Amino acid sequence: MLTSSVLDLLKKRQLDAILFSSPKQIIYLTSYGGISQTERDAFILATEKKCYIFTNQLVSAEIKEKIKGATILEHTRSKPFAKNLADVIKNEKIEKVGFESNNLTVTEYLTLTENISSRFISVDLSTIRVIKSESEIEQIKKACDIAKKAYNLTCEKIKPGITEKEVASIFEIYILKLGASLSFPTIVAFGKNAATPHHHSDETKLKTNDIILMDFGAEYNSYCSDITRTFFIGKPLPEQKKALEVVQTSQKLAVEFIENALKEKNEISASEVDDIAREYVIEKGYSSIPHSLGHGIGIEVHEAPSISPASSDKLSKGMVFSIEPGIYIEGKFGVRIEDLYTISSAKLVKLT
Amino acid sequence: MLTSSVLDLLKKRQLDAILFSSPKQIIYLTSYGGISQTERDAFILATEKKCYIFTNQLVSAEIKEKIKGATILEHTRSKPFAKNLADVIKNEKIEKVGFESNNLTVTEYLTLTENISSRFISVDLSTIRVIKSESEIEQIKKACDIAKKAYNLTCEKIKPGITEKEVASIFEIYILKLGASLSFPTIVAFGKNAATPHHHSDETKLKTNDIILMDFGAEYNSYCSDITRTFFIGKPLPEQKKALEVVQTSQKLAVEFIENALKEKNEISASEVDDIAREYVIEKGYSSIPHSLGHGIGIEVHEAPSISPASSDKLSKGMVFSIEPGIYIEGKFGVRIEDLYTISSAKLVKLT
Repeated sequence: MLTSSVLDLLKKRQLDAILFSSPKQIIYLTSYGGISQTERDAFILATEKKCYIFTNQLVSAEIKEKIKGATILEHTRSKPFAKNLADVIKNEKIEKVGFESNNLTVTEYLTLTENISSRFISVDLSTIRVIKSESEIEQIKKACDIAKKAYNLTCEKIKPGITEKEVASIFEIYILKLGASLSFPTIVAFGKNAATPHHHSDETKLKTNDIILMDFGAEYNSYCSDITRTFFIGKPLPEQKKALEVVQTSQKLAVEFIENALKEKNEISASEVDDIAREYVIEKGYSSIPHSLGHGIGIEVHEAPSISPASSDKLSKGMVFSIEPGIYIEGKFGVRIEDLYTISSAKLVKLT
Repeated sequence: MLTSSVLDLLKKRQLDAILFSSPKQIIYLTSYGGISQTERDAFILATEKKCYIFTNQLVSAEIKEKIKGATILEHTRSKPFAKNLADVIKNEKIEKVGFESNNLTVTEYLTLTENISSRFISVDLSTIRVIKSESEIEQIKKACDIAKKAYNLTCEKIKPGITEKEVASIFEIYILKLGASLSFPTIVAFGKNAATPHHHSDETKLKTNDIILMDFGAEYNSYCSDITRTFFIGKPLPEQKKALEVVQTSQKLAVEFIENALKEKNEISASEVDDIAREYVIEKGYSSIPHSLGHGIGIEVHEAPSISPASSDKLSKGMVFSIEPGIYIEGKFGVRIEDLYTISSAKLVKLT
């Protein structure tokens, strides 16, 4: 559980321990996928030498069986988590504790600081999972393959009259049949609904010549995929065709920029990649891309690095990320293409 | 959106406004189910007279179309949420703002308090959704019916050799086919796995005479169901049979206690209900129930009221809640029965 990235962070921030709370982070550290996304099944306290897992009676028997290499403490009604943590912090003489300020709620934070006098210091954990191992990339690739397969099977069933919700449901059933789960609720948007980048699939029926935007993904062995396709059944209008071509070229320009840059250096500025794709879209007469060009993906659908105008992230070997330019014309239509890529020994590899 | 329960809370806590952040609370206030559970699609600021919705470019077009009766403000990279909120708070001369301290993260809270000098006061929103309307109870009933139907269809496919994951997947496919979604990941536990109350379904294969515990639910029109059944294919051991009977009687005692109490009064102490069921389990020689006896349900699977030893909640008309005693013998087996009930004009009505 004490990965080199955790040890590096402890050292760099001069911390005695880090308290991990977000379920995805706990899945990463323990390699145990059975952590609930909505309940607080567990917290982890990691020092330079030791790991403590704090869990509850609803899951403790299983955590003890599945997770090795940690001291497991169970909280109860009479001895809540904060008391167990206070004891460990006292015994280990911990003065500075890093914590996930973008995950811990205000109530949780206040309960901890009322019970524990150590200094709680906000830490950015995005570096911990940003470089993927070969086996992690394999899992993401598998999640991509499943999503593509379910998408291809779904496409065969799309015909005029079908609703967005029905298409989403067909896709989701294929994902389950293929032994995976959803990495996020499937976006299916017909016609003008595609103008909302994160449209919520509804009862809209498909009309002939409608644009169809599908943003979909699978989760397999805790790893996610995320793909977007825009297509037509019938004939696109010239303005739709143009927008789709601009988005395709925009993605191609970003890809070529990374490929060329990799010939000369190991690290590429993410904001420069965003800029190449975004400027082309603007140059072609569109207002801009109303979202980031891309995001990292792994155990979470959205994680580091961020490929956006304000990003200070650098893209480098072992990272996995999306490149997804989009154009949205309110009240009319939207187009987006999203593929996943990884940087593998000075080369950009497409996963989707 | 300004329900009487929101206005009551503003008055009772002497607040000028309440900032709502949790997705489920926003779905409740807007009756719009398309709010993401994982992203921050929207925040709502409610004063005694007005509602403001703060949203982003990924969903704003749709929020504007679907949600009426509110001023909608869109945040952008150059004008983030905290700035938009600061403007409204200044214009409305808001001094005291209630906020969801058990939902807002530490980072979000710090960003708001850095930009806004008003006093932020933690409020407990559990009272807002605790009394359900007839139409809300209808939705929950529908979610129960779908879950029961999917469960019955699934039971027909259960046979020795099948894995927990396969059973969960069969159930989940039925839920999708019935036009609903999952209210939580399905728990399927065979044999000793049932000793973990929140077991994570895995590759364990069903053996003849194994105990089977299924905890499952559907979400329909944003409303949830939550049901647990424990059964056998084959013959239970005497100790399993006894535990199941104790759990059944424990649930029955809690139900009878509520039914009798309703003849005399409108409000029933939730902790007393927990006590009746729990004491019976202990009396029969088991250590206790390692979780609450029950919980409210509605837009969220777990919401107010809490039926637990430490609860100060009162059960009353319009509430919907589970009663779910369980006995867990580590390394051997577990049994739990969970049904949903509502109090309707001085009567307890079973929904499952």
